Amino acid sequence: MSHSFLENINFPKDLRQLSYDNLPQLANELRQFIIDIVATKEGHLGASLGVVELTIALHYVFNTPEDLLIWDVGHQAYGHKILTGRKSVFETNRQLGGISGFPKRDESEFDTFGVGHSSTSISAALGMAIASKLNGDIHKQHIAVIGDASIASGMAFEGLNHAGVTDANLLVILNDNAIGIDPSVGALKEYLTNVKKGTEKQDNIFEALNFDYSGPIDGHDLPKLISELERLKTVKGPKFLHVITMKGKGLKQAEENQVTYHAPGKFNAKTGELIIKSSLSQPPKFQDVFGETIVELAKQNKNIVGITPAMPTGSSLKYMMHDIPDRAFDVGIAEQHAVTMAAGMATQGLIPFCNIYSTFLQRAYDQVIHDVALQNLPVIFCLDRAGLVGEDGATHHGVFDLAYLRCIPNLVVFAPRNAIELRNIMYTVQLKIDFPIAIRYPRGRCEIIDWKKPFEVIEIGKGIELKKGKDLAILSLGTTANTVVKVLDSFEEFESIGHYDMRFVKPIDTKLLHEIFGNYKAVITIEDGTVVGGFGSAVLEFANQNNYKNKIEILGIADKFTEHGSVQELKSINKIDAESLKEKVKNLIFGLNI
Amino acid sequence: MSHSFLENINFPKDLRQLSYDNLPQLANELRQFIIDIVATKEGHLGASLGVVELTIALHYVFNTPEDLLIWDVGHQAYGHKILTGRKSVFETNRQLGGISGFPKRDESEFDTFGVGHSSTSISAALGMAIASKLNGDIHKQHIAVIGDASIASGMAFEGLNHAGVTDANLLVILNDNAIGIDPSVGALKEYLTNVKKGTEKQDNIFEALNFDYSGPIDGHDLPKLISELERLKTVKGPKFLHVITMKGKGLKQAEENQVTYHAPGKFNAKTGELIIKSSLSQPPKFQDVFGETIVELAKQNKNIVGITPAMPTGSSLKYMMHDIPDRAFDVGIAEQHAVTMAAGMATQGLIPFCNIYSTFLQRAYDQVIHDVALQNLPVIFCLDRAGLVGEDGATHHGVFDLAYLRCIPNLVVFAPRNAIELRNIMYTVQLKIDFPIAIRYPRGRCEIIDWKKPFEVIEIGKGIELKKGKDLAILSLGTTANTVVKVLDSFEEFESIGHYDMRFVKPIDTKLLHEIFGNYKAVITIEDGTVVGGFGSAVLEFANQNNYKNKIEILGIADKFTEHGSVQELKSINKIDAESLKEKVKNLIFGLNI
Repeated sequence: MSHSFLENINFPKDLRQLSYDNLPQLANELRQFIIDIVATKEGHLGASLGVVELTIALHYVFNTPEDLLIWDVGHQAYGHKILTGRKSVFETNRQLGGISGFPKRDESEFDTFGVGHSSTSISAALGMAIASKLNGDIHKQHIAVIGDASIASGMAFEGLNHAGVTDANLLVILNDNAIGIDPSVGALKEYLTNVKKGTEKQDNIFEALNFDYSGPIDGHDLPKLISELERLKTVKGPKFLHVITMKGKGLKQAEENQVTYHAPGKFNAKTGELIIKSSLSQPPKFQDVFGETIVELAKQNKNIVGITPAMPTGSSLKYMMHDIPDRAFDVGIAEQHAVTMAAGMATQGLIPFCNIYSTFLQRAYDQVIHDVALQNLPVIFCLDRAGLVGEDGATHHGVFDLAYLRCIPNLVVFAPRNAIELRNIMYTVQLKIDFPIAIRYPRGRCEIIDWKKPFEVIEIGKGIELKKGKDLAILSLGTTANTVVKVLDSFEEFESIGHYDMRFVKPIDTKLLHEIFGNYKAVITIEDGTVVGGFGSAVLEFANQNNYKNKIEILGIADKFTEHGSVQELKSINKIDAESLKEKVKNLIFGLNI
Repeated sequence: MSHSFLENINFPKDLRQLSYDNLPQLANELRQFIIDIVATKEGHLGASLGVVELTIALHYVFNTPEDLLIWDVGHQAYGHKILTGRKSVFETNRQLGGISGFPKRDESEFDTFGVGHSSTSISAALGMAIASKLNGDIHKQHIAVIGDASIASGMAFEGLNHAGVTDANLLVILNDNAIGIDPSVGALKEYLTNVKKGTEKQDNIFEALNFDYSGPIDGHDLPKLISELERLKTVKGPKFLHVITMKGKGLKQAEENQVTYHAPGKFNAKTGELIIKSSLSQPPKFQDVFGETIVELAKQNKNIVGITPAMPTGSSLKYMMHDIPDRAFDVGIAEQHAVTMAAGMATQGLIPFCNIYSTFLQRAYDQVIHDVALQNLPVIFCLDRAGLVGEDGATHHGVFDLAYLRCIPNLVVFAPRNAIELRNIMYTVQLKIDFPIAIRYPRGRCEIIDWKKPFEVIEIGKGIELKKGKDLAILSLGTTANTVVKVLDSFEEFESIGHYDMRFVKPIDTKLLHEIFGNYKAVITIEDGTVVGGFGSAVLEFANQNNYKNKIEILGIADKFTEHGSVQELKSINKIDAESLKEKVKNLIFGLNI
């Protein structure tokens, strides 16, 4: 297919030169452009395919970037990026130094608000609309495009609830495709389904919140979209347009397998077929170790329940949802509710495993403190995607958790270095605990293939010696242990270097630390979390309290936001990769005159 | 009035012995009992007076504590406490060692879930209801009582949205009095008002979310309450009862001045008249320094806006809401929305002062990271009630902020030691900054009466020397500086002790720290935040990076939850009061052989 229209469009002003009749052809071209590049470069596919027509219509009707357009989450913004100056660099999407997979203010004036986490768009757009009014920009338009999974999150409701009592010039477009990453859930979703079916009056909820509601309309019908957006430009106050789209639209497999094609990896651009590397001989993903282990445990312990806020696939709780559906709960994008509901369950003797990505637990920080830790309830947080997540970038790295969790009284914080440790801590904590615990583990695969060993109890607060040494001790946490093991083998001074996997940041193993500080001259700590207030700081606090004066080097994520790139690249940038550790060890050994 | 019925009631089982006809008399007695004690012992008044009949009806109809009753926020639970075993100790309310001002699991089996922060009750009750179902307790009832201000918070919506697709035996009672601490705001509040007026269909929103809605009914009509609750006991699935009450009911002044009588301090139990100590010669409250200063600045700088999530009175943003209403926003109990709206405003050149209590900023932690700091937007957070708040207790102390904010890149963190510093930092940051800042200050009064001095710029990241010394340096943060000043005067070794107010936890003044660590043998840090990962840890991290081996002592809030009591008592417990500091200094000086 020749990209006859798209070729000549670099910015929305070019798009606005096209005649109305040519837009459907442009939509085909844009869709194919996205498919062609994502097929080889990977990324989020389905969401952007679903809003191709809406994207064209918005930039055609509105005067972007003067009019302010905010994409919620941003998975769906590839078409937007391509039409707003980034067509030629779109192939660098999500790569180190390339464009971000999400809208990002630094990248383009068309990206009015950086996104990544869901449900922020209404609040941000309302803030902008109020600002425009105060600034006297009475003709500026403010548009938030939000999906039906995201609008069910509490934060979106807060935005609607405030907007409804303002006269802000705000247009909220509900991109209703009945799916987030996994299918949408909840009462609001059922309501929206009934609106679509015509069995529920369409004006109930949003009109009750004082929005001027219109729709539902077909989000793939360009003429209808354009005429409706033109009409809404002239309507004052908060407006709500309900648009029905299909995620993955235009690629048959993506339409039919929406969960898989949310971010399908490499695929054949013509046939849609996935290009799957055999994973037979590969170690499991940490998420699957969680997913399979909770099923195994829950079959024996009837008190175990599993909770995920809208990540059944990403967390692999889907296995339990399939096998034991009455005890596994997808609560939608509702981290706050997930945590407090888990607390409520724990009061009644259930053993809730609440699985939330590390970065998303930031959404429920107060609930962890106020509802769980303060009441010392035995809720088990399984924090997936802890540490550097790679291509999703700054919005998604789980690098603050050790610091923000460590300061919470009562909470135990554990990081397994491999699948067996994750499996065993899950086993341990369901036996009986009288405290909450956060178990944080990274995205991706662990390094052990043969991981389904008989369960063993892990003693709470106990680190372990992985290798004895005498001059320099390296203290690792979580999977940084594997980096240490790799590096150690390469040293001539192998004998003098000890390696300890501390496992628990809290309570930290003070007995082991006394041994280490008593026996070694120097200590290196290594973690995949921020160096400010994290694991290394816990070791510093211990050393200071006990008057140890040993040399301590803290390796971890630098105190700035880490952008996107491969995990390996980002580790190297933060100097927690094997090469950097090697260098650091060499320098220290040299300084110690070993 | 003789308490003829209340005298004989210690637990709900006693209440259930009363005949139906005697309940209105009991309501009068209970109301008077609350008034009599709160009049002299202080506490939250209006909310509990408003639910006297509802409290009696709930414990009369339901089989508490087997049936599980959860009070949202808990301001309204005094009647509940008195009827559930705590009548004789109610006069110890909110005092050190006495009962908590909020429901608390440790205190009574009738307090099924600890509360304090709003909007948790639906999630907790749903978790309990799901647990009961799994446990086979098919007759157990689960009741969440939530106010109209709290139900507008996103978290409550998340709970409703999930509950609506379950068959959980959950009753949500909306205690609709049109006010939280300040009058309720938002579109949902307008909707509820229209339901009450009969101008809006009552079944719109909650029925759309699959709840069986009934009401609105008069929450002071005991027969009606009891018959409706009896009926609802037999209805399956999620139910919603809309009850209309009057905050302060039964005390004329409290009915007429609901904001003042939310927590009125001491008053005349007969007349209701407030017993106000003259504040003429007292220094101002920090909140008023904020409230008056923002008005002063906003009159000169048209870009300044003020935002509060439902705390216009507590934050004193009410002054700006009165003087400059179009630029001061009460967004309701919606911390997440408040922060992200502020970020949106900042993108358009406004200068948002977002005032949130330290403990409530935990509710918007992700938004601070993801929407503000990551985009490096110049949002100014004014965190009131930082440090120990006293009688509100464990749920409300603002002691984690330094630790959880310090790990966020780009964010500046400042603590003024007095009114002048607060005033000057507010002046400084509205001039022009290109970063976000958190300014945290305590509840209560500062120590300076004559605080309205001409504005001066504060250099960002700059600490100051308050007193030169030579052996021991005390590094304070915020109002702990005043404790240091008091203690210093009392020492014979006065000459040898230096005092530095670091002011900024981030960026910390490394130039000043180099001077201090170079010139003093020992360092004490003192803060009213957690010792885990806070200000002291920042100093440790600096010392370690720079190989300083000076003795360092870190004083701050211990790593456990601090209960309720006077601020002075709680400081003493945490050893950050003047006496404890004095002791610590003495010991250190002795150790240094000065």
